[in-house]
Amino acid sequence: MQLLKESILSRGRVVGKDILKVDEFLNHQLDIKLLNEIGKEFKKKFNGKEINKILTIEASGIAIASIAAQYFDVPVVFAKKVDSKNLDKDTYETEVYSFTKARNYTVRVSKKFLNKEDNILILDDFLANGRASLGLIDLVNQSGARVSGIGIVIEKGFQEGGSIIRSKGITLESLAIIKEFKNGVPIFK
Amino acid sequence: MQLLKESILSRGRVVGKDILKVDEFLNHQLDIKLLNEIGKEFKKKFNGKEINKILTIEASGIAIASIAAQYFDVPVVFAKKVDSKNLDKDTYETEVYSFTKARNYTVRVSKKFLNKEDNILILDDFLANGRASLGLIDLVNQSGARVSGIGIVIEKGFQEGGSIIRSKGITLESLAIIKEFKNGVPIFK
Repeated sequence: MQLLKESILSRGRVVGKDILKVDEFLNHQLDIKLLNEIGKEFKKKFNGKEINKILTIEASGIAIASIAAQYFDVPVVFAKKVDSKNLDKDTYETEVYSFTKARNYTVRVSKKFLNKEDNILILDDFLANGRASLGLIDLVNQSGARVSGIGIVIEKGFQEGGSIIRSKGITLESLAIIKEFKNGVPIFK
Repeated sequence: MQLLKESILSRGRVVGKDILKVDEFLNHQLDIKLLNEIGKEFKKKFNGKEINKILTIEASGIAIASIAAQYFDVPVVFAKKVDSKNLDKDTYETEVYSFTKARNYTVRVSKKFLNKEDNILILDDFLANGRASLGLIDLVNQSGARVSGIGIVIEKGFQEGGSIIRSKGITLESLAIIKEFKNGVPIFK
């Protein structure tokens, strides 16, 4: 997706060897026009797939999923990372290791919002080692629903997440795949 | 806002004396059509106000702010509640007490995304004791920006947040104000 790649090059920043910061438009400040173009692109990529719900994970997946959901005309469910008194006890749970936060955390979805009739599109901002996506797949599997596909805004193609997920036979569409960082500049696949 | 009140009555649940759960449409599963109507309503309420950015707080404010931002044609910034290695050190910070989680937490916004030229609309899902909104006002004040208004989806009118904020002379628009719960049913003002 050309506009996304241009945004990454002009407004993203590479920190250290392999951290790409896109907080100017994707996960702290949100460029809503760009998110709309991303939403339309996901709709194109998954056109014809049976999808009745989008699943994402807080916090940075929520805006992407919500804007995209308008093009799919479906509701969004976001998995929660933290304990909350207001979350039902009756949840599907899975453990996810976050390299960003350097710890395990529990991810939960209320059982009310995933069930065996559902065809789920999983959307998220990044795919690197794949832990978050694998956690969301696990939640969908627990509920008996089907994963219709996974849509990722930015895939770090030099990490193993993409190949793990593709090897499961799941349709994975990443709108920008970074092959490597060269002198602090992302090189796309 | 009639559609919102109907959604609260038909799809919300009152738990205990004063907890209203709206996780079926507002803060776990997201009814994107309803969020669009909410966004349009905020645009009506704040029409004519100078607004160049919407500020909200993760996680439940993000979808509301992102969908609403389409009607204002502005970007969104969401304040972060948790430490993240990927968040710049250069942040505005404030402490907020969460009654839901029964603890204090630090709320941060990168200094890059709030500055003295900004006219900020603050949006959030709930207003009860007002701690989250007051925290966001504090972040805006630290940056030298102006609060053009605060838009809330559901205000608990029997708690003090609304009067604290209105007494500061800030325009506060709540799309549904709950006066009380009577036999487990929300009564609107």
